[in-house]
Amino acid sequence: MATVSTKQVFRIQHRLLRKVFQQHLRLCSNQSLRTKQQLQDDYDNCYVEPQETAQFATPPEKIVHDQDVGPQFSAKDLGVRLAAPGQLQPKPDADDLGFGKHFTDHMLKVFYHKNLGGWQKPEITPLENLVMHPAAKVLHYAVELFEGMKAYRGVDGKIRLFRPDMNMSRMNLTARRSGLPTFDGREYVNCMARLISIDQEWVPHTEAASLYIRPTLIGIDPTLGVASSDSALLYTILCPVGTYFKADTSGAVSLLADPKYTRAWPGGVGNRKMGSNYAPTINVQKEASKKGLQQVLWLYGDDHQLTEVGTMNIFMLHVNEQGEKELVTPPLDGLILPGITRDSILALGRQWGQFKVTERKFTMPEVIQLLEKGRLLELFGTGTACVVSPINRIHYLDQDYYIPTMDQEKPVFQKLCDTLTGIQYGKIKDHPWAVTID
Amino acid sequence: MATVSTKQVFRIQHRLLRKVFQQHLRLCSNQSLRTKQQLQDDYDNCYVEPQETAQFATPPEKIVHDQDVGPQFSAKDLGVRLAAPGQLQPKPDADDLGFGKHFTDHMLKVFYHKNLGGWQKPEITPLENLVMHPAAKVLHYAVELFEGMKAYRGVDGKIRLFRPDMNMSRMNLTARRSGLPTFDGREYVNCMARLISIDQEWVPHTEAASLYIRPTLIGIDPTLGVASSDSALLYTILCPVGTYFKADTSGAVSLLADPKYTRAWPGGVGNRKMGSNYAPTINVQKEASKKGLQQVLWLYGDDHQLTEVGTMNIFMLHVNEQGEKELVTPPLDGLILPGITRDSILALGRQWGQFKVTERKFTMPEVIQLLEKGRLLELFGTGTACVVSPINRIHYLDQDYYIPTMDQEKPVFQKLCDTLTGIQYGKIKDHPWAVTID
Repeated sequence: MATVSTKQVFRIQHRLLRKVFQQHLRLCSNQSLRTKQQLQDDYDNCYVEPQETAQFATPPEKIVHDQDVGPQFSAKDLGVRLAAPGQLQPKPDADDLGFGKHFTDHMLKVFYHKNLGGWQKPEITPLENLVMHPAAKVLHYAVELFEGMKAYRGVDGKIRLFRPDMNMSRMNLTARRSGLPTFDGREYVNCMARLISIDQEWVPHTEAASLYIRPTLIGIDPTLGVASSDSALLYTILCPVGTYFKADTSGAVSLLADPKYTRAWPGGVGNRKMGSNYAPTINVQKEASKKGLQQVLWLYGDDHQLTEVGTMNIFMLHVNEQGEKELVTPPLDGLILPGITRDSILALGRQWGQFKVTERKFTMPEVIQLLEKGRLLELFGTGTACVVSPINRIHYLDQDYYIPTMDQEKPVFQKLCDTLTGIQYGKIKDHPWAVTID
Repeated sequence: MATVSTKQVFRIQHRLLRKVFQQHLRLCSNQSLRTKQQLQDDYDNCYVEPQETAQFATPPEKIVHDQDVGPQFSAKDLGVRLAAPGQLQPKPDADDLGFGKHFTDHMLKVFYHKNLGGWQKPEITPLENLVMHPAAKVLHYAVELFEGMKAYRGVDGKIRLFRPDMNMSRMNLTARRSGLPTFDGREYVNCMARLISIDQEWVPHTEAASLYIRPTLIGIDPTLGVASSDSALLYTILCPVGTYFKADTSGAVSLLADPKYTRAWPGGVGNRKMGSNYAPTINVQKEASKKGLQQVLWLYGDDHQLTEVGTMNIFMLHVNEQGEKELVTPPLDGLILPGITRDSILALGRQWGQFKVTERKFTMPEVIQLLEKGRLLELFGTGTACVVSPINRIHYLDQDYYIPTMDQEKPVFQKLCDTLTGIQYGKIKDHPWAVTID
């Protein structure tokens, strides 16, 4: 009964929405409006086909759900409460997006309450404030985790996700590590696909931008005491985004590498995307900015291993002792986040076979030595927000080291970036990593 | 004008409140109601005298406010909006308190908005849910920190705080490390004193319980992107509490010491009371519970140094190589929280002169060796929530080690506990660490 009336409301609001879209609202781009039939099709069927053929550099660990998590939620129970026409926000210009400043009209929520049997029915609602008890665990003990994903408007007009199963897998591993309930990632991707479909006109019609997807899981028990959460909220908000950070005019970033700060350590949670990995970095990033540097290069250990850069994984292309070109990145040893862009670059690099691809530790003294010998070719960060971000300078122990990443004739970072964005924006057709929402 | 009407409302609600208190509500204890005059006096003047004579083992670092924080808030601007009589909660029985489950009727809030000049006027309101944007930084990047303090109902009926200046100092140091705005700790203590005074009947009338005070500071900017917070909320909630955790029948706790987990590391934030230090511990604590152990003993380094226990500092009393009794605790080297109970115990121990008091690293192999030689006397945790918590067993590398803490004739932990609670509950008169709210 409730489902029927929700459907009716949805249908009526849907009609209203379309009217509003067509008459009043600016789009994120200058492309023409989708036809009525196209819209109808999108709304009626927005489920994602399971990915069977994706290639991994390192397959993600299998998720094991604790028995006491209870039954999983299902996308078929998804309820939808659309924003009233008056609540809809005008869309910003595509060249004024920045990162994470503008949000779409709707959000997705799934509550978990152990004493109500666990996961509740997922619900799409207008974007609205969260209301929580001032003792909610997320506010005191950082019982929180998130993912960063994107939806891309392809050259064919279709909207694609990039390897969403990888994000869901990492999110569940992080949930376990945080004492938060795990969930069925595929069901949640289906719910998010519906959300994106509803807010589809917020997906920028340009390759210079995309729709950032922020799935978040927080512990909301209103009790002090450092303990697991019996109540949680899994939610997703969306924002159209441009570039993550401003590079210099060359398009490259400069880094502060200060061995007195450490991002993660053995026995910690550096390989999980927990909120707690981020707060301690903010002040260090501020210090980098004060010195006119754009990002922090995180070192580890007495030998000053390079681990991550800002919120990205790091790659180095160099000529090795044997005279071969070799792309190296730190291994998944618990100190670094298992990046999805990182995994994709490793897989692409191995597939291409044009240079050696190695996961191993490398240190600042090695970087300096390679620079001196003229054998360091490229250094770049990788991540969902930035894709591939070339590095041109490192400030380390009061010295500046210039990295010739931008001086290469046919830089590998550019080829990787072009390939990844090619897959994401549908220029490379039917790639198994690209998941179309339709 | 606004101040006048607030005052009037306050006066009227205050009269109502007193009526309600006297007629309907159960107190947290069986002590008789305070007289009308006493109540009036308490309400009229609840400011705290500055502490000039407190003794430190290690004086806290001086707080430097960044210029761009703007002007500080002041307790004289404190606004009060009292709960309506119908909103007042019945008080739980003193023996059913637990930890952090029950909250008092009011809370204290101070907002910070950089674009409105920084700190706004502090305000006491009924305890109410917080409303925040789903992108608020606290929910994603753990931009949050807290303190734990207590108000004690003394044997003379007076309410005391314990070294609140130390908490405020630590909170400000943590704020700086978190990219959150600093504030004037003394002004905030005055605001909290007013809050406690308003909710004074929630301070249990028994030495077995106290009123736990939870000052919290969170970043609430509604923007994604890992960065400093331009908007923040400093707030305090109160809960009457009994014992923090259940010890076994002997009153002692057992510990899991697993070297594969690390709480903090050099270059991290282990010495700051940030929310991010807590989430990663929850799953490890769960593992300890599954093994029938009550707390986690956090080890560090290849030599398995003892750093903290649960959320407490750790102390060991032993007979040293010279045959003297010696109390040791790890030094403030960045790996451990600078506990206020820890500092007080060091100061008391040095004052007493009955045993040597040393801040130095000590390791599990040393603990085992001392046990074998019969020279380990006591091991205990210390903190605001638990005061002093004796340890009787450590599970380490698949072996159980029994610690004779409870077998000593006149244990030092008990004398320390008695002295601290003696100061807190006013049995030791006019101690400079005890700050009376009146």
